[in-house]
Amino acid sequence: MAVYTEVSDEELASFLATYDIGTVLSYKGIAEGVENTNYFLHTTAGTYIMTLYEKRVKESDLPFFIALMQHLAERGLNCPLPVSNRQGEALGWLAGRPAAICTFLDGIAVRRPSASHCGALGQALAKLHLAGQDFAMARPNALSLDGWPQLFAQAEAQADSVSAGLAERTRQELAFLKEAWPSGLPTGVIHADLFTDNVFFIGPEVSGLIDFYFACTDALAYDVAICLNAWCFEADGSFNLTKGRALLAGYQALRPLSADEIEALPIFCRGSAMRFMLTRLVDWLNVPPGALVKPKDPLEYDRKLGFHRHVRHAREYGLVA
Amino acid sequence: MAVYTEVSDEELASFLATYDIGTVLSYKGIAEGVENTNYFLHTTAGTYIMTLYEKRVKESDLPFFIALMQHLAERGLNCPLPVSNRQGEALGWLAGRPAAICTFLDGIAVRRPSASHCGALGQALAKLHLAGQDFAMARPNALSLDGWPQLFAQAEAQADSVSAGLAERTRQELAFLKEAWPSGLPTGVIHADLFTDNVFFIGPEVSGLIDFYFACTDALAYDVAICLNAWCFEADGSFNLTKGRALLAGYQALRPLSADEIEALPIFCRGSAMRFMLTRLVDWLNVPPGALVKPKDPLEYDRKLGFHRHVRHAREYGLVA
Repeated sequence: MAVYTEVSDEELASFLATYDIGTVLSYKGIAEGVENTNYFLHTTAGTYIMTLYEKRVKESDLPFFIALMQHLAERGLNCPLPVSNRQGEALGWLAGRPAAICTFLDGIAVRRPSASHCGALGQALAKLHLAGQDFAMARPNALSLDGWPQLFAQAEAQADSVSAGLAERTRQELAFLKEAWPSGLPTGVIHADLFTDNVFFIGPEVSGLIDFYFACTDALAYDVAICLNAWCFEADGSFNLTKGRALLAGYQALRPLSADEIEALPIFCRGSAMRFMLTRLVDWLNVPPGALVKPKDPLEYDRKLGFHRHVRHAREYGLVA
Repeated sequence: MAVYTEVSDEELASFLATYDIGTVLSYKGIAEGVENTNYFLHTTAGTYIMTLYEKRVKESDLPFFIALMQHLAERGLNCPLPVSNRQGEALGWLAGRPAAICTFLDGIAVRRPSASHCGALGQALAKLHLAGQDFAMARPNALSLDGWPQLFAQAEAQADSVSAGLAERTRQELAFLKEAWPSGLPTGVIHADLFTDNVFFIGPEVSGLIDFYFACTDALAYDVAICLNAWCFEADGSFNLTKGRALLAGYQALRPLSADEIEALPIFCRGSAMRFMLTRLVDWLNVPPGALVKPKDPLEYDRKLGFHRHVRHAREYGLVA
């Protein structure tokens, strides 16, 4: 929770003067958002979220993210729609940071999803993949197989201070993943970070997906694996097969997985668990003094990795084939 | 900026079930608010601010604050209106904290007020004092003359580490204020913390006053002095007489100050500067490790005190008598 960049009245007024969205009635910094600064913005024309992109988001990636949200929204997906200013640009500059104004999405991020939520999430993920199929831009996934060795290099020496044996476990797992990593599977736009905080519900329905700032081009089934990790484990570390079944059935109802994708799913679950273990581990070992954001536990994903190592078939995640 | 208390979906749902304000569409923690936790709340019935009262607000004071806001709103003052639940109660319990839901007020807190803003603020302050005249409850001002020695005792030994001579200056000033403090002046409900962040504007008009959690019963002119301190000094420490004139003229247009109140104004300016210097000094010397809120500079108010010591008449604040 953090507002990294404060915006003065004058800066806001001159920024908004470039848009055709009425006059400001209210704006308030939002305590959510780990990577960027977000303001709730109410104008005579409607409600918006104004985002200032902080240093962790690469400026050169922003046109991809903005164009992607516009593409998905045009195809009927409920996601924030970046608003264009009078020059037709959706990306501007505010208080020394790149900034955009997006439409506000109603909905609540569920903290403890039920199987029914997981089913709805599976469908929403398939819709996202289908809507992204004709998106023309591409962005490589910097946090996949090729990026892990560099990430691990930043944490390897201190890994055992977090958990005994973590360095050796990770070395072995990385070697295995390098050998076993599937290729030639259907690719497209993936969200790559579809955790519960990025999915809004109104009642049982998904009302919107947010936070596309890890989106990239990669195997679609890898995104399914990320969601199995993020949505189907209980707080005690156990895997809830009923939730996995609901998620996979929801997804397959709109986009059936191919035999190759099904075969790849256990590897992708290991890979995506590795990705979150590694980024969390690096953050964990590098908490700056006075940090506003509490780091997430890397060992949660080390334990999930341990679970996936014993999986032999996607049926163990709830796939009904 | 801080969300001190996280609210789970389940806790929120059962809390809101006691109210008749529709179903939740969205809620987001707001980064503003130093004392309490605030959530922006959007339901099918409207928009609200939900406040969880943290430890610095005394639970026994909450009925006074809630009843005051209801009283003022009934008399047409634009302030948050606490919403009553189905049992007719505006104060509930959420996530282990006392909590209330108030109507959302549009408007922007100006960071650098103009003379025109100061004039509108003066009028709004007078309206508040007039609307509060028939409020039946009372709450002593714990942060006035009688409370300062205890506050100072917490900081005296370390005061000189903040500024050379601060301890002795403060001792002398406290002795002076004890002798010179006026009595017998018109009293009533004062806001007691009407800084720029607590006053919303839409264009040149005041659209609302917020944050009544220091409100108490005290001399009305003391509230005017607090506002002169908070609104009429420039960032470089200079007093802007044009702003003072606008503030006082705005106030007097609706509630003319008596001769006694005018005479008391320089003392009240010294006293209110002392109040904010002392509370800031105590906070400054007691920043907990990992604090989410940056402490405010006590010396800003020590310097304002120095200015007021040379004032002999309210004309020097811009009073046109």
